[in-house]
Amino acid sequence: MLQKHGQKTNTPKVQYRTEMLKQKIKDKTVVVAVLGLGHVGYPMSSLFAKNGFQTIGYDISSKRLSDINQGKVISELTSILPNDETHKQKTLSEIANNLKISNKEEILKSADVFVVDVPTPLKENETPNLLFLTKTCKTITKFLRKETLVIVESTIYPGATEEIVKPLLEESGLHAGDDFYLSFSPERIDPGNKKWSLEKIPKIVGGINKESVDVASSLFSQIVEKVVPVSSLQVAEATKMLENIFRSVNIALVNDLSKFFEKMGIDTWETVAAASTKPFGFLPHYPGPGVGGHCIPKDPFYLLYKARKMGTNLEFIEEAACINRNMPLYVVHIAEETLNTCNKNVRESSFAVLGVTYKKDVLDIRRTPSKTVITELRKVSKNVMAFDPLTDETFGAKTGSLEETIKGKDCIILLVNHSYFRENSIEDKINELAPNCCLIDTRNFIDSSKLKKSIIYRCLGKPLKSG
Amino acid sequence: MLQKHGQKTNTPKVQYRTEMLKQKIKDKTVVVAVLGLGHVGYPMSSLFAKNGFQTIGYDISSKRLSDINQGKVISELTSILPNDETHKQKTLSEIANNLKISNKEEILKSADVFVVDVPTPLKENETPNLLFLTKTCKTITKFLRKETLVIVESTIYPGATEEIVKPLLEESGLHAGDDFYLSFSPERIDPGNKKWSLEKIPKIVGGINKESVDVASSLFSQIVEKVVPVSSLQVAEATKMLENIFRSVNIALVNDLSKFFEKMGIDTWETVAAASTKPFGFLPHYPGPGVGGHCIPKDPFYLLYKARKMGTNLEFIEEAACINRNMPLYVVHIAEETLNTCNKNVRESSFAVLGVTYKKDVLDIRRTPSKTVITELRKVSKNVMAFDPLTDETFGAKTGSLEETIKGKDCIILLVNHSYFRENSIEDKINELAPNCCLIDTRNFIDSSKLKKSIIYRCLGKPLKSG
Repeated sequence: MLQKHGQKTNTPKVQYRTEMLKQKIKDKTVVVAVLGLGHVGYPMSSLFAKNGFQTIGYDISSKRLSDINQGKVISELTSILPNDETHKQKTLSEIANNLKISNKEEILKSADVFVVDVPTPLKENETPNLLFLTKTCKTITKFLRKETLVIVESTIYPGATEEIVKPLLEESGLHAGDDFYLSFSPERIDPGNKKWSLEKIPKIVGGINKESVDVASSLFSQIVEKVVPVSSLQVAEATKMLENIFRSVNIALVNDLSKFFEKMGIDTWETVAAASTKPFGFLPHYPGPGVGGHCIPKDPFYLLYKARKMGTNLEFIEEAACINRNMPLYVVHIAEETLNTCNKNVRESSFAVLGVTYKKDVLDIRRTPSKTVITELRKVSKNVMAFDPLTDETFGAKTGSLEETIKGKDCIILLVNHSYFRENSIEDKINELAPNCCLIDTRNFIDSSKLKKSIIYRCLGKPLKSG
Repeated sequence: MLQKHGQKTNTPKVQYRTEMLKQKIKDKTVVVAVLGLGHVGYPMSSLFAKNGFQTIGYDISSKRLSDINQGKVISELTSILPNDETHKQKTLSEIANNLKISNKEEILKSADVFVVDVPTPLKENETPNLLFLTKTCKTITKFLRKETLVIVESTIYPGATEEIVKPLLEESGLHAGDDFYLSFSPERIDPGNKKWSLEKIPKIVGGINKESVDVASSLFSQIVEKVVPVSSLQVAEATKMLENIFRSVNIALVNDLSKFFEKMGIDTWETVAAASTKPFGFLPHYPGPGVGGHCIPKDPFYLLYKARKMGTNLEFIEEAACINRNMPLYVVHIAEETLNTCNKNVRESSFAVLGVTYKKDVLDIRRTPSKTVITELRKVSKNVMAFDPLTDETFGAKTGSLEETIKGKDCIILLVNHSYFRENSIEDKINELAPNCCLIDTRNFIDSSKLKKSIIYRCLGKPLKSG
């Protein structure tokens, strides 16, 4: 796919240096620094360490460092660890041997490679908040030397590496492309996806020049199965945008259709399953209470920001993001509607929200739709409890055990299909503790045939059954 | 997936009759009538005939019948014919033996099964034109007997089988479900798709009651590899809508993005190829001059019609359809823009349009985007020629051989990536016959490295190269 590079051809001297660095990468004698040890940076730094690279992990949060040191977030490494216990322990000690973590920037002194994995969130007004990125660039600038390699993995809009990262790094007096290598290689981690681990997902690599693509590709080919070089930084940036906007748009489509199908008496879940039998040209997406996590809810707004700055209106993509954003309100709406069908007043009803994180069996609560659902419920009812087996966060709702949360509630809303609920026979618990409730299932998770007849069951994307 | 049927349980007598009909289907002693011998009905009737069913093909068009009889449209059967010549001829004579075609409705007298494959187009105002469907139902009504089976395959909005087809058939005095079986089973044919032939694509089957699903499933399981029963007529209808709206929306997304990426200097084709390396959660779609054929451009408007009638606004789906519909105008726009860059006035320029059908190597011209492109060009230029190896239709443009069409033109627009153009070394022909043209490639088909430097090459979804 490597086709064009607008840059000037490098001199034989630069070519020689590039070959030297590639050899050092092959020999694993380069020191790799990963900046930002979050849901991406922690597994990423561990993967370098696992593969024998002397690795530095830098993060400004002492809380996060202590969580890592105490093994509290070791579940984030699941996809790069062997299954059997002996091999797993061996791998963990290899990682511990090679990975040094710190919140002191001096640790970066010895780095030959800087990998940027900091969050790129949104400001209140839905425009990119690049503060973490720019601060990190300024830190790197202090330690940048000739022949070092900088790789950005954080999601940014097309053009940002060249427009924002490059000038900040060049404040060092060194020139990107000539003096140091600059690459953008989007992270593609899928939390909780056991089939597609970090090592098995092909790695897109763009660069400011051909040499930057070359050295970054050499590095990644040491730790992942497949590297896909592309022709420019912008194509690499745009690839990540396309992937996540594809998801945003397709989730919006099925959410939008499901509201209409409910009205028509059509089961969206059955319809999606039927369409999935088409062996080409279709990819299933499912209705849900809204999108969460650090990618799908925000990435479209990165592209929309850039488009607006260039005078382009991407209304269609914006509309998709809005449909998804409004889903938590729709969940509250159908809860109210269902309560009304059994003559219950929403203001006098008690609520239990089951599941707070944004995704099944994942403990990430960033931009989780449950925040909106709980906040809206608390505006109308004084009795709102929430429970999640993976997090203590409840956005102001009272909490307790699963049983305490369910007990005696008028309305139970299942927002996340955690395995925990299955393992704890959620249907039996509801039958026992809230036999007269309205049960709102946003994940098609509940086996409604197990429920007592006195329970009014409603599933998102399915028609409310009469009677 | 078969879950619920609102209908009353049938009596033992009806159950007995159902078993009888299923046995006759198994013995292939039922006579199958296919009504409408178009791009779906002709292959479908041939497939029944190939599998040993006495088959009746009914179509009101004597032109179509004569085309079929003269073997002019035999290419539409490619996917159900064996590759080697001996077997192919044997299959064709089996089909000829078992398939009787006619435009006289009396031929339907002996039918036990009626399969409806008539077009369901749009009126001028973008609402469903169900005239073919209703006329066909009235014809069936004349010949409907007890224990016959009616299957609708034509694409319609959810609810239409029950609301429109059923009452028309019941004018016979017979009751759907009790006296005759009624099923909806969407056609899923993909013209030109050699991998997924009619026989290999799973068949969704919905019915007005369980017995209707049963007998229709029995029938289809005789001619296709997999049958997927669903719980209602509406789910079967909605499945087809979802499949085609999925395509409309995803094509719109990449078309919309590609216009912005062009502006940013990003190659959309390379970006889509890079995103396609993600092994989960992505399905590639490509930019193009707009959608055509009998499905993608119109099916969204069937659902939109039904939604509007029910007071639901599906703006997002409408917006997608509009983006695709505007693509031919965008193609004309970039042609004008490219001509301007070399100081050519569009009014004084001559144009060649290469490819008129809606899809590669397919001779279907229904709703082809070329119609709009040619019409718009003819508004501004007196010299517009068009050429397609598969059709003589040029929507008013002059035509000639490929060479005559290209010769001396200021602007050449490639709209369809027919294999014919590759086989005829299109780049060489353009170099020789129009060495100073602007060449607009809407399919990323041209090998621009083979073009003379004097040719200004522009590909949809790619930035216009400077200089």
